[in-house]
Amino acid sequence: MAYKTSYSAEVEPQDIDFTLRETIASIGDKILNVAGVDAHSKGFGVDALGHDNLTWVLSRIAIELDYRPPQYTKYDITTWVNEFNRIMTTRNFTLTDAEGRVFGRAVSQWCVLDLKTRTAVDMNTLSDIYDSCLVDIPSPTKRPAKVAPPTGDVRMAEHRVVYSDIDFNRHVNTMRYIQLMLDMLPIEEFERQEALRLDINFLHEARYGQTLIVAYGETGGEWRFEVKTDDATVCVRASLRL
Amino acid sequence: MAYKTSYSAEVEPQDIDFTLRETIASIGDKILNVAGVDAHSKGFGVDALGHDNLTWVLSRIAIELDYRPPQYTKYDITTWVNEFNRIMTTRNFTLTDAEGRVFGRAVSQWCVLDLKTRTAVDMNTLSDIYDSCLVDIPSPTKRPAKVAPPTGDVRMAEHRVVYSDIDFNRHVNTMRYIQLMLDMLPIEEFERQEALRLDINFLHEARYGQTLIVAYGETGGEWRFEVKTDDATVCVRASLRL
Repeated sequence: MAYKTSYSAEVEPQDIDFTLRETIASIGDKILNVAGVDAHSKGFGVDALGHDNLTWVLSRIAIELDYRPPQYTKYDITTWVNEFNRIMTTRNFTLTDAEGRVFGRAVSQWCVLDLKTRTAVDMNTLSDIYDSCLVDIPSPTKRPAKVAPPTGDVRMAEHRVVYSDIDFNRHVNTMRYIQLMLDMLPIEEFERQEALRLDINFLHEARYGQTLIVAYGETGGEWRFEVKTDDATVCVRASLRL
Repeated sequence: MAYKTSYSAEVEPQDIDFTLRETIASIGDKILNVAGVDAHSKGFGVDALGHDNLTWVLSRIAIELDYRPPQYTKYDITTWVNEFNRIMTTRNFTLTDAEGRVFGRAVSQWCVLDLKTRTAVDMNTLSDIYDSCLVDIPSPTKRPAKVAPPTGDVRMAEHRVVYSDIDFNRHVNTMRYIQLMLDMLPIEEFERQEALRLDINFLHEARYGQTLIVAYGETGGEWRFEVKTDDATVCVRASLRL
């Protein structure tokens, strides 16, 4: 029997920025932790896949927030999977405040990678696990868009991938990509209280020791970002509307 | 009646490095969060001082670890204040595993800053709050040492202070200083399982938009670090023995 599942979250001192509200990167991190814990509890976590040398890879995510919650706020993250096909699966999230109001929505798309061949796996081979977990409830907002490269007055910054950037694979972790991109914004943007939507496409991993180029530009109220390695491989693209 | 107080901690996925063990920065962050919560619960937190435009400033800390705990480990952080004089106070910590074994020790020294005049406050003016909170138990290890500048083959890296580095004061937060310094180490150092001791001196704050120079060098098994602003103000010095 498939169902939505809720997990409790709290905005702790290390999660906030200078406005005393939770950072987008911290919210993204909590969402992805919930994805990991929920998949594990339902029998298709990284640990279960790992027996066959398979792993989950996040391909795209969209995060929509009506506001960023202040320090010490408690909220719930509810998640469900509602789509599953040969090449990817869709996992959804809503963020709900203590009064039961939804203030955030996210849609993520994942594929399965074979760690030996480094290629995507036909996910139909996982259908016996997966079919029993699908929840027939639509995604809470539009799916993550395909993001184009930045346009307008494009600027660049360089970043060398260091120890504190990497995960257990020695790849840059998702939270750091979000930080690297949002660190480029004029700081005044974070003082605004308005709603936002962030679409991120993960295209290629960046590794320890590589030098990254973070390009960014703004056109018509949309900030676009692109993270490339120094051999011009595009790792991540993102679009932020504030 | 003065007493030690214990707080529970857990190594979460965002706290670990590629070795799947908690980072020194994350452990330091948890220790400092405990300091804040404990001071608050005993009536001398930042919030209580804030009424008089005073704030706590961390001056020095030493952290000793027998090992870095792996992901999902639960442990306790126990804290007590055992010294208080005109210019500073000493707060102590022990880290205890689920079997009750102490695997970490920390000693921190704090002063009180007047935010209006930006000068240190004579802490005897706070003695009525403080006297009742002193616990007559010695510090669990040597106090934080005064750290000299790096020597040996000294190398340097530059870092511009960005949005994700700063706290509510728009100063670089303590965890980021630790990351900036340890990111300079050869990554193999983090694969070692041995005990370590880190001594940090906080000398001056670094602000949003400043460019920092992180200098580091190794002599006789001791790594020393220095973080300066581009106008040569020394912000932080640290010594790491692995």
